[in-house]
Amino acid sequence: MGGTSKKSKQRAADAAAIYEAVEVAGPAHESRAFSESPTTALRARRPVELAGIDSRDKAGYDGKKIDGVETLAAMDPVLSDLQERLLAASRHGGDGRVLLIIQGMDTAGKGGLVRHVIGAVDPQGVHHHAFKAPTAEELEHDFLWRVEKEIPGEGMIGVFDRSHYEDVLIHRVRGLSDPEEIERRYGAIRDFEEQLAADGVKIVKIMLHVSKGEQAERLMERLDRPEKHWKFNPADIDERELWDDYQRAYEIAIEETDADHAPWFIVPADRKWYARIAVQQLLIEALQGIDPQWPAATFDVAEQKARLSAE
Amino acid sequence: MGGTSKKSKQRAADAAAIYEAVEVAGPAHESRAFSESPTTALRARRPVELAGIDSRDKAGYDGKKIDGVETLAAMDPVLSDLQERLLAASRHGGDGRVLLIIQGMDTAGKGGLVRHVIGAVDPQGVHHHAFKAPTAEELEHDFLWRVEKEIPGEGMIGVFDRSHYEDVLIHRVRGLSDPEEIERRYGAIRDFEEQLAADGVKIVKIMLHVSKGEQAERLMERLDRPEKHWKFNPADIDERELWDDYQRAYEIAIEETDADHAPWFIVPADRKWYARIAVQQLLIEALQGIDPQWPAATFDVAEQKARLSAE
Repeated sequence: MGGTSKKSKQRAADAAAIYEAVEVAGPAHESRAFSESPTTALRARRPVELAGIDSRDKAGYDGKKIDGVETLAAMDPVLSDLQERLLAASRHGGDGRVLLIIQGMDTAGKGGLVRHVIGAVDPQGVHHHAFKAPTAEELEHDFLWRVEKEIPGEGMIGVFDRSHYEDVLIHRVRGLSDPEEIERRYGAIRDFEEQLAADGVKIVKIMLHVSKGEQAERLMERLDRPEKHWKFNPADIDERELWDDYQRAYEIAIEETDADHAPWFIVPADRKWYARIAVQQLLIEALQGIDPQWPAATFDVAEQKARLSAE
Repeated sequence: MGGTSKKSKQRAADAAAIYEAVEVAGPAHESRAFSESPTTALRARRPVELAGIDSRDKAGYDGKKIDGVETLAAMDPVLSDLQERLLAASRHGGDGRVLLIIQGMDTAGKGGLVRHVIGAVDPQGVHHHAFKAPTAEELEHDFLWRVEKEIPGEGMIGVFDRSHYEDVLIHRVRGLSDPEEIERRYGAIRDFEEQLAADGVKIVKIMLHVSKGEQAERLMERLDRPEKHWKFNPADIDERELWDDYQRAYEIAIEETDADHAPWFIVPADRKWYARIAVQQLLIEALQGIDPQWPAATFDVAEQKARLSAE
């Protein structure tokens, strides 16, 4: 049971660090905020050149890690409040919903992002789906078939851990589809996302941008820790040999599919804490864009109170 | 925006209370534990007589609210660790999975339980589903049709907020199905759950047991707070007139379907903090019963490290 104990201690230490940060600041403390919104600072710009974007950047945020940990904790209730309003509004005709698409190379931090940002939100308001290699049944259909089934319902925050973008990323790099089909898919994705946006889905697309060196360190860490071995696959190292091809595939996919109704954000992710607060803030601003309101009572409050009191 | 601010303050205050409790105890502190496991203390016994079970009881736990809040926080990493092992094991052939079924009268605390207990677990390892009134399509099928589609996959913790039990509870009380059909359903549920258990699903069934008086207070609180109005429905007060019928329907359903492979636990829920730590502990013990292990590496660790270093 050595793994449990080590792991538990690590988690307890992580929790202690957060508690300490909040304790020092006090929960009512105004935590450090972004000086420039990630919605503008991280928005993809054509031409997309990933090599020109520092993966250790803290765009729009002047703080250090300790500040970032505090910001994450301080903004959790803001995100939770917006999520609950979104769900509440949907019960009375509101049709707002959000789709967060998370892409990135292996070890870019997709899982940690889900755990630390999405994990703070009420599970009842989240539809999370991790897209794995397609099943035999899925392969018999168009690549968007399995994606359509996972679109969040009204009032929900949908989270895609990988997505239909794999069908133009790995497919391009590994030649799993021919070039004409890849071209067709860019168009299909544009049409698909345009329709989603027209249906009231607020789309936020994230590319977690890590450096090849940072990935090597994270893979080595997985190899160093027995309880992380299950996350490692020797094929991960094979894929590294195609690093530049993947970067190029991302650049093209982003250029082909970025749109104001379906924007791409390139999030520097070598510093995990920064990537987390940046995505948290992007989600918050997406929800603020919807601006969900508590629905007004559809009944006479005083009358219902009287009924309850009169029992 | 008054609602946001009030709500945020409430959440910040809740968070502060937890941080404070943990801060005082220190994360490495041995938090107060159950003196008797809820797995035995709360297990339903025939004949089931809800009136004879104190809904303010703290069975098996000697602490107060402040201790309970601390226990919840202290056990979060234990639950998280077990969940991650479960998921890890499933990637290498492990077939363990858990299904937590949560039932209870309106306001019994189902939502809070999901938020505070399940919310601490990685969203990637949880399949949460809230069963609402059946759709037209669902009504065309057997009552278990929509349930089968939500059974958790291997490595997952499934959480049902309401379930197939509504089809023998409200259906019995409101006469939505005739008595013969209700009888048939008890048998169908027994067969269904027996098959699930045989397929490796660890089933934990929770009845959150609140008093009628506590429900009145919670409904009044919803009426007092505009941001809670969306959760209130005048029909909730109509249902209260059938309180005794619902209690009886629960007693019968529990007696008809309790089994060692699909046990019912009657969780006193007038004290929300107690219900949360009790269910947290039930989940932990269910996972400990599976005892998922970190899978051994299927590759040569030293060789992979050498490959990575040699790049």
